[in-house]
Amino acid sequence: VADLGEKRLLREVLLPLTASPRQRSGVGDDAAVLKIPKGSELVVSTDKIPENLLALEFGLLDAYHHGRYLAEANLSDLAAMGAYPLGLLVTLAVPDDFEIEYLRDFMQGFGDAARRWDADVLGGDTGWASIPLFSATAVGAVPAGGALTRSGASAGDDLFVSGTVGDFGAALLYYASAGQRGGAVSTQHEQHLRERLTAPRARIELAGQLRRSGTCSSCMDITDGLGQSLRELTEASNLGAEINTAAVPIHDATRAVADLLQVDVLDVVFGMGLDLELVGSLRASGSKRNRSLDCGITVIGEMTDDPGISLRIEGQRRPLPDSGWQHFTRSALDQVRALAKPNREGRSR
Amino acid sequence: VADLGEKRLLREVLLPLTASPRQRSGVGDDAAVLKIPKGSELVVSTDKIPENLLALEFGLLDAYHHGRYLAEANLSDLAAMGAYPLGLLVTLAVPDDFEIEYLRDFMQGFGDAARRWDADVLGGDTGWASIPLFSATAVGAVPAGGALTRSGASAGDDLFVSGTVGDFGAALLYYASAGQRGGAVSTQHEQHLRERLTAPRARIELAGQLRRSGTCSSCMDITDGLGQSLRELTEASNLGAEINTAAVPIHDATRAVADLLQVDVLDVVFGMGLDLELVGSLRASGSKRNRSLDCGITVIGEMTDDPGISLRIEGQRRPLPDSGWQHFTRSALDQVRALAKPNREGRSR
Repeated sequence: VADLGEKRLLREVLLPLTASPRQRSGVGDDAAVLKIPKGSELVVSTDKIPENLLALEFGLLDAYHHGRYLAEANLSDLAAMGAYPLGLLVTLAVPDDFEIEYLRDFMQGFGDAARRWDADVLGGDTGWASIPLFSATAVGAVPAGGALTRSGASAGDDLFVSGTVGDFGAALLYYASAGQRGGAVSTQHEQHLRERLTAPRARIELAGQLRRSGTCSSCMDITDGLGQSLRELTEASNLGAEINTAAVPIHDATRAVADLLQVDVLDVVFGMGLDLELVGSLRASGSKRNRSLDCGITVIGEMTDDPGISLRIEGQRRPLPDSGWQHFTRSALDQVRALAKPNREGRSR
Repeated sequence: VADLGEKRLLREVLLPLTASPRQRSGVGDDAAVLKIPKGSELVVSTDKIPENLLALEFGLLDAYHHGRYLAEANLSDLAAMGAYPLGLLVTLAVPDDFEIEYLRDFMQGFGDAARRWDADVLGGDTGWASIPLFSATAVGAVPAGGALTRSGASAGDDLFVSGTVGDFGAALLYYASAGQRGGAVSTQHEQHLRERLTAPRARIELAGQLRRSGTCSSCMDITDGLGQSLRELTEASNLGAEINTAAVPIHDATRAVADLLQVDVLDVVFGMGLDLELVGSLRASGSKRNRSLDCGITVIGEMTDDPGISLRIEGQRRPLPDSGWQHFTRSALDQVRALAKPNREGRSR
């Protein structure tokens, strides 16, 4: 990018993505101006892509999916609030020798994710940095008073998750160990794992359904493993939870990886991962309705007055072990390798 | 920060700053929810602090002012649009060995800048990075249709700047050369320069006055030198400009530095700096009123049909030389040193 200069970079990489009727001004002006639909509140959040993102280290993420990933991770924060997207801002800071083509593809992926929700790329900031950095801000809206927050649950409320959980963690394990040579699980499973690792999708549509149902008493997205999310969710309402582990929706591909690597599949599901699925609670009074909420969620337990999370496993009860990502205390890669270790040592090297 | 972990860092550094009645949820939830005043449009922008910020390299910026600087640079984008601030989001990415105390002081400065405008710290993102990175997003509002944009000027419109321009550039020059030993200009001037370098202020209040006056046809903030800003401003309206250099408001301290270093003060004013002052145009029809707009702006020339910027200097006319920051093509420090060179070579070193 050194040849282009910062101003031209902004114009060539960002500008093509930002023409929209909703947006009065954007890239090229000092800030974007946009209308907020009447009766709505604004929802904003910011998220960056970790420098040590494992999908990047494994060489699994091309520029397009890298950009899409940044957008989806930011959109997921809106989903967690039951909001719908209006637009995204992006920050691109890269070294002099960074490829402009990469940034173009990156922004294509970023823009495609935004467009899927009719959201705009509202502008952003480009500049030099000694290490590439990609960050974004999501701007969304929600009918006034309707935002889904983390707090608000009562004891007896059903706990739900969307989709399947643990796929992201399983994919990391797989590619950190067996997967690098490929073929260790079925092609179909490998495809599923790869997609969950490189192309996660924010659950915007589901979040809207949950909000409109009027029965959702708390909600968040899963970005640090289901265990950590459950801890944060229950603490926000000063409650605990009892989970029926048999009810947790786990994909066959995730089970296959756990089998292959001889790790407990529950460690993968509760301990790892940025699935961008939603976890939350549904009011007990709507319980019957909840079980028939036909939008891809599964009830996995309930909120309890007792603090702490207990897992019901084959009739037994045990507390949720302490785990989850701790970016500062240990690199994510170390964690993955530690978890994958039993098998890796039994293998070649 | 390695001992704290990401979640606690977020809670300890960000949470104390985010309690506010306007804000329904924020740090600790997935996104912030806020009301947009009726009849208003949303204004959003994002800006990061350059890794190679010279005030940092010179050791002039403590943690508190570093944080305030980030906030003011972002608020300035709102000012450029005539908007008032509602809140700020912050991204803090730091290495394991980064001091938590620094982040606390940083956020204190960041929060103070927000509070000055009754704006909230809406939340943000913290995490690990191999190089410290500080970025933010400003969220503001403006009465619908009232935003000041870069385009909209007509030939004959008066061009104005706020405050004095070039102070930031002069301060850089001073501290890059003579200033490091101190005492080369008067204490009063040194104080002024230091303040302009380390504690720039977004012109939010002035921007509101300009918007309400109804005569401001275009506006932007000066972050890359007055010359570059004039180029962008005129191009946005497909116009040119004629500048009466004698009218450009230049602080005595800036003149003193130019004298000291034997550089042309106009190179400093037009070529350098992030002054966070506003430059814009006022409708010709309001011209008489303009000259009496008692809010610290100075008319320095006018918009012309002829493209390009010409400077009127002591009766002569010359085109604006090609200059301005180019972060990618040359480090800012090199530029400062090159400009300061004549003097530095004549000195001891």
